[in-house]
Amino acid sequence: MENRLDLTDAETRALGNAAVEWMAEYYRTLRERRIMPDTTSAAIRELIEEPLPQSGTEAGRLLEILQSTIARLSRHNGHPRMFGYVASPGAALTAIGDMFASTLNANVTSWRSAPAPTEIEHVAINWIKEILGYPKDAAGLFVSGGSLANFAALAAARSFKAPGVIATGMDGHRRLRVYVSEEGHFSIAKAAGLLGIGQANVQAVRTDARFRIDLAELERCVEKDLTAGYVPACVVATAGSVNTGAFDPLEELAGFAERHELWLHVDGAYGGFAALAPSAAHFFQGIGEADSVALDPHKWLFLPVSCGCVLYRDADAARRTFGHDADYTRPVGLEAEEAFAFWNFGPELSRRFRALNVWLLIKYAGVRALAEAVEHNMACARYFEEMVRASTDFQMLAPVTLSIFCFRYAPKGFTGDLDALNERILVELHRAGHSYVSNTRLRGRFALRGCVLNHRTIEQDMEILLEDLRQAAHRALALDGEGHPLPAGS
Amino acid sequence: MENRLDLTDAETRALGNAAVEWMAEYYRTLRERRIMPDTTSAAIRELIEEPLPQSGTEAGRLLEILQSTIARLSRHNGHPRMFGYVASPGAALTAIGDMFASTLNANVTSWRSAPAPTEIEHVAINWIKEILGYPKDAAGLFVSGGSLANFAALAAARSFKAPGVIATGMDGHRRLRVYVSEEGHFSIAKAAGLLGIGQANVQAVRTDARFRIDLAELERCVEKDLTAGYVPACVVATAGSVNTGAFDPLEELAGFAERHELWLHVDGAYGGFAALAPSAAHFFQGIGEADSVALDPHKWLFLPVSCGCVLYRDADAARRTFGHDADYTRPVGLEAEEAFAFWNFGPELSRRFRALNVWLLIKYAGVRALAEAVEHNMACARYFEEMVRASTDFQMLAPVTLSIFCFRYAPKGFTGDLDALNERILVELHRAGHSYVSNTRLRGRFALRGCVLNHRTIEQDMEILLEDLRQAAHRALALDGEGHPLPAGS
Repeated sequence: MENRLDLTDAETRALGNAAVEWMAEYYRTLRERRIMPDTTSAAIRELIEEPLPQSGTEAGRLLEILQSTIARLSRHNGHPRMFGYVASPGAALTAIGDMFASTLNANVTSWRSAPAPTEIEHVAINWIKEILGYPKDAAGLFVSGGSLANFAALAAARSFKAPGVIATGMDGHRRLRVYVSEEGHFSIAKAAGLLGIGQANVQAVRTDARFRIDLAELERCVEKDLTAGYVPACVVATAGSVNTGAFDPLEELAGFAERHELWLHVDGAYGGFAALAPSAAHFFQGIGEADSVALDPHKWLFLPVSCGCVLYRDADAARRTFGHDADYTRPVGLEAEEAFAFWNFGPELSRRFRALNVWLLIKYAGVRALAEAVEHNMACARYFEEMVRASTDFQMLAPVTLSIFCFRYAPKGFTGDLDALNERILVELHRAGHSYVSNTRLRGRFALRGCVLNHRTIEQDMEILLEDLRQAAHRALALDGEGHPLPAGS
Repeated sequence: MENRLDLTDAETRALGNAAVEWMAEYYRTLRERRIMPDTTSAAIRELIEEPLPQSGTEAGRLLEILQSTIARLSRHNGHPRMFGYVASPGAALTAIGDMFASTLNANVTSWRSAPAPTEIEHVAINWIKEILGYPKDAAGLFVSGGSLANFAALAAARSFKAPGVIATGMDGHRRLRVYVSEEGHFSIAKAAGLLGIGQANVQAVRTDARFRIDLAELERCVEKDLTAGYVPACVVATAGSVNTGAFDPLEELAGFAERHELWLHVDGAYGGFAALAPSAAHFFQGIGEADSVALDPHKWLFLPVSCGCVLYRDADAARRTFGHDADYTRPVGLEAEEAFAFWNFGPELSRRFRALNVWLLIKYAGVRALAEAVEHNMACARYFEEMVRASTDFQMLAPVTLSIFCFRYAPKGFTGDLDALNERILVELHRAGHSYVSNTRLRGRFALRGCVLNHRTIEQDMEILLEDLRQAAHRALALDGEGHPLPAGS
C-alpha cells in the first residue's frame, strides 16, 4: 500500500529548510512584532474552521497557513517585553531540539523503551539537583509542568501521612490538612481536590509584609487543626510566588515540618531556578531538607513549554505512590538498571523526551551563562522598581523579591477609582501590543504585574514598558468607566 | 548584557539546516537501523555522564552527540518492524510541526494566552468528535497521553457520583467502585489510587473468549457491591485493550451504565482511532452515549509522543472537577469566547501546543488516507494471524480484533516449558535487533505480542517478523534454561 503520511526525502528537506528559514525570520523579527494580536475568537474561526478534511493539502500550503494565520494570530511569549504571567521565552536551539525529539520519537517510559533518553534524563535531573543543592540520591523526573509536579509531590505527601491510601482510598482517613501561604499557586488546591484531600482542607496561611508565609500564623493553624482532630500532612513552601515573587523561608519551614512531622514540599515552579543566581542563593538554604520540590525548566530555564520537574528526597516515597506493574510491561531478561521505569515515579506512562532540551541548553550555554541571564532578569525587575519609586505617577504594590514587579498607576491628585482605572490601563496596553503585563489583586487592590523571564530583555525594555504604560494611562484617563471617550472638557 | 542563550541568525540557519539533513537521513535509513541498540545503562552513562557544565559547548558539537550517541543508543519506534507495546511512529511533517510549535512557543492555557492555537485545538477536537461520532457539543482537550486522559475522565466520574468531592474530599464518601475488564489498562487503577478512590475499589471483571468484558459477570459484581453498601460509580469500556486489542461492547455497556446510573468511560487510548477504518466502525456503535472518552493521537493517529485526548459529553461535568480561578489569571476586559480557559477542563495549566500536529497531519493527509493507513495496519495483523494459523510451529493465543496479535512458538513435539522458551525467544529477537515484539500473559500463559501501528509497515514486514522469530526460536532452542549453549547432541 502507498504510504501517504510520510513526506518524500526531497519534500522533507524542502519543507524542513523552509521551516528553518521561517524560524530564523521569526527570531530576527520577534522584537518588532505586536505581542498580542488585536483579534477575536470569531475572526480566527472564520479563517480556520472547517469540517473534517476528507482529502489532503499540499505541505507547502500548510506552512503558509502556519506563518500567515497561526503565528500571526498568536501571543508572542518570546518577545522581550512580554512580561505577563510567567512566560517562557524558548530559543532556536530548543526548537531544533524539539524537532530532533519528535524525529527520534523516543517514548521515555523506561530504560528499555528509550535507553539513551533515559540516561540523558538521569543526567539532566542530576544537574538540577546540583543547581539546587538537593541530595544526590533524590529521585526525580520531568512532567508537563508545575501543576503536575505539584500534584505528584502532594500525592507522595498524602502517602506519607495516609499509608495504604493508594490501595484502599481516602474514605476513613481523618481529614488531611495542607498548609500554604495565601500567595500559593492554585495548582496546590487543585491537586488537593483531585487527590481526594479536598480543596477546603488546604489552609491558606496569612503572609507578612514581604508576602512570605507568617510562621506564627502557620503554627496557630496547625495547633487548631490538631485540637479539632484533623491530620496536618503537608506544608507547601512557595519558592517564588507567581503573584509577587515572594519566597517563603525554607530553613524555618524545614524545622517546622520536622517538629510537626509534616511533609515539606517546595513549589519552586517559578522561582526554583533562581538558585542559579548568586544574589538569590541565600533563599535556598534548607532546601535539602524538603521532601519534594517542583520546578519548571519551561520557566526560568528559558525552555519552551512544556517541561516541569519534580524531585523527591526519598525515592521510595514516590514509588509507593506511583509504582505499578502489569503483564504487558513486565521486563524480560533485564538487569536492575535496565529495568528502570519512570512510571514508578509519576502519573504518566508515555512521556515525551523532555529531558533533551534541558540537557541541550545547559550543555550549550553552560551554567555560568544561565546564571547571568537569571541574574540579569532580576536586575531588570529591580531597575523597573527604582523607576517606579522615582516617579510621581506610579507606585509599587509589593517589593521585588525575584523578577516579578507589582505596581499601579496612581497619579497625584487622582480621586477616582484606581482599580477601575488600572484595569482600563491594562486593556489599553494590550490593545497597543507593544508591551504586555498581566494583573493580580494584592491586599484587596488591583495590581498591574510583570515578570522578567527572558534572556532577550534589556534595561531599555523596562524603560519602554514604563513609557507604554504611561501612554496607556493617558488614553485610559480620556475614557469614561465604560471605555467610551469622555466628552471634551469633562 | 550579552545574550548567550540565543543562536545568531546565521547559526540558527546552519544548525537548523544540519538538523533537517539529519532528519531526512534518519527517515531514509530508518528501515536499515537496528530497532533496539545492544547496550547497557553503564555503557551509555560512560559516554554522557558529567557534572554540571560550567561553560558552554559549540552547537554543532551538540548535534554530533545527538546523532552519534543519543540517536544511535535509542530504540527506533518509527521502524516498520517495531511491533512492541503501542508505539507511535511519528513522521517528518510532525517533527517539523514540533519545531514550529517550540519556536512559536504558545502556552495553550487559554484563548487569551494563545488565540490561534486555542482555536486550532477547538477545530482538532471537533474533528476527533466527527471521527468518533461523538456529540458536537462535547468538551475536550489534549493532554500528555492516555494515562492523564483516563485520570481526567475518572476524576469527572468521581464528581458525578460524589458531588462536592473536589471541595471537601473523599473522607466520608462510601466507597466508590469502578468496573473494568481484566484487560483494562493499569492507568485506570493508577488513577483510582491517585483520586483517593483506591485501587482496591477497581473491580476487574472477567472476560469472554474474545477478551471482552463479560456483561453477566459485570452485573453480578455491581449487584454484590450494592448489597455490600458500596457505591458503583463508573464502568470503563476498553476500546482496544493493549493486551489483545479486545473491544468491549459499547452499546450494551451504555445501556448497562444508564440502568445503574454509572458513568461510562471509554478507554480508547489504543483503539479509539480505529473509528477511522470502515471495517472497525461497527465497534463504535453507542459511543455517543459514553460520558467520557480517552484516545491517543500519539498512537493510532501516528503522531509523535506526547499527545493524548479526553472528551467529556457534558462540559459542565469537567468544569465542576477542574474549574478554578485565581486573581492572577482573572481575565480582564474579555468576552465569553475569549475568556475560554483549558485549565477548567483538565489537570494542567501550562500546555504545549499539542493540537498543532493533530491539525497538521489531518490537513496534510486527509481523513481518507489516514483511514487507509489504519485499515492497512489491521490487515497486516490479520495476515500475520493467517500465517501463524497456517504454520506448524507457532500458535495464536488470542484472536486478532484490531492490530494486536498474541501468539507463541509451540513446535509440535516440544515437551519443555513453553513459557520459558518463549521468554528466551523474546530476548534473542531483541538481541538480533531486526524485528521487535513485546510480551504479556494471557490466561496464565506467556505470550509474544505485537501491535501494528505504523504507516510504514507492509505485508512483507510481517513475513520477515515470522522468519526472525523462527530464527530466534532456533537459537533459543540451542540454549539451556539459563541462556548458555546446550552441549552438542543434547
